[in-house]
Amino acid sequence: MSPLPDPHTLLKKITQETRTFLDRHHINDPHMVGIHTGGSWVAQALHQALSLKQELGTLDISFYRDDYTRIGLNPQVKPSHLPFVVEDRDILLVDDVLHTGRTIRAALNELFDYGRPRSIHLIVLLDRSGRELPIQADVSGQHLSLRPDQHIKLQGPEPLQFIFSEDC
Amino acid sequence: MSPLPDPHTLLKKITQETRTFLDRHHINDPHMVGIHTGGSWVAQALHQALSLKQELGTLDISFYRDDYTRIGLNPQVKPSHLPFVVEDRDILLVDDVLHTGRTIRAALNELFDYGRPRSIHLIVLLDRSGRELPIQADVSGQHLSLRPDQHIKLQGPEPLQFIFSEDC
Repeated sequence: MSPLPDPHTLLKKITQETRTFLDRHHINDPHMVGIHTGGSWVAQALHQALSLKQELGTLDISFYRDDYTRIGLNPQVKPSHLPFVVEDRDILLVDDVLHTGRTIRAALNELFDYGRPRSIHLIVLLDRSGRELPIQADVSGQHLSLRPDQHIKLQGPEPLQFIFSEDC
Repeated sequence: MSPLPDPHTLLKKITQETRTFLDRHHINDPHMVGIHTGGSWVAQALHQALSLKQELGTLDISFYRDDYTRIGLNPQVKPSHLPFVVEDRDILLVDDVLHTGRTIRAALNELFDYGRPRSIHLIVLLDRSGRELPIQADVSGQHLSLRPDQHIKLQGPEPLQFIFSEDC
């Protein structure tokens, strides 16, 4: 494994690319939502760097996961917090690591339970290999090819750092 | 508008690229599903060209659309037909034109109502601009940049041809 990406370097990159993305798509009033927990850390930093007007939202997708019945009830579930109306809004959904796409599908479904957004765009710090659904980020800090037995996760809140592991 | 893409040329291209995609992802037993109606035409041709073993499925996503309550009941709704178990299968979802991504989100939700697939990959004949959700094709015949007031649709079943129109 080559050196792990530095979250703060990737944060700078996605800040710049998100700005360009919003300009190019004429999105003037973005509503940002971070996926609990790693996505929320990234969203907090990005929200601040972009000086967004709308308050930041948080999604906890535990109840929407497609393996919910397998993992059982998670006693740590934090409720989602969306401090704005979703209907007809341009949503920026933020996560730390995009992997299979299943978390994002769950997040889309939860968002749609609040209303029908005009658009949802996806921003991730790290885009790793292993997609199982046709979901892609609109902005990502870096792509990383990993084998199925290799894992990477973001540890936080501060200092943010990536943790790498391999199955034995 | 430059000359419209030729569906049969794009069909040849996605046939070849799907073959490569399946090899690269070690998918040995793909289960193909076309989205009614344009996606089904494409899926029929692709299914035959690839000589797939599993019978072809069809999804009608009318009841799963996020604007269902706006457009009301469609008297032409054809039921979905999935002649195989979805659980733990590698699904190839096929559509004619990928545009906002909302149809694909609806199709994913309908598929998950049948079971939890191992993977769903998306194959489209034409990938046009105007995405409103973070959904992307794994294989597409061509990308086409169109303005929001420009429309393209596949007419069929035979001969397949694209129809282009603009709002007045």
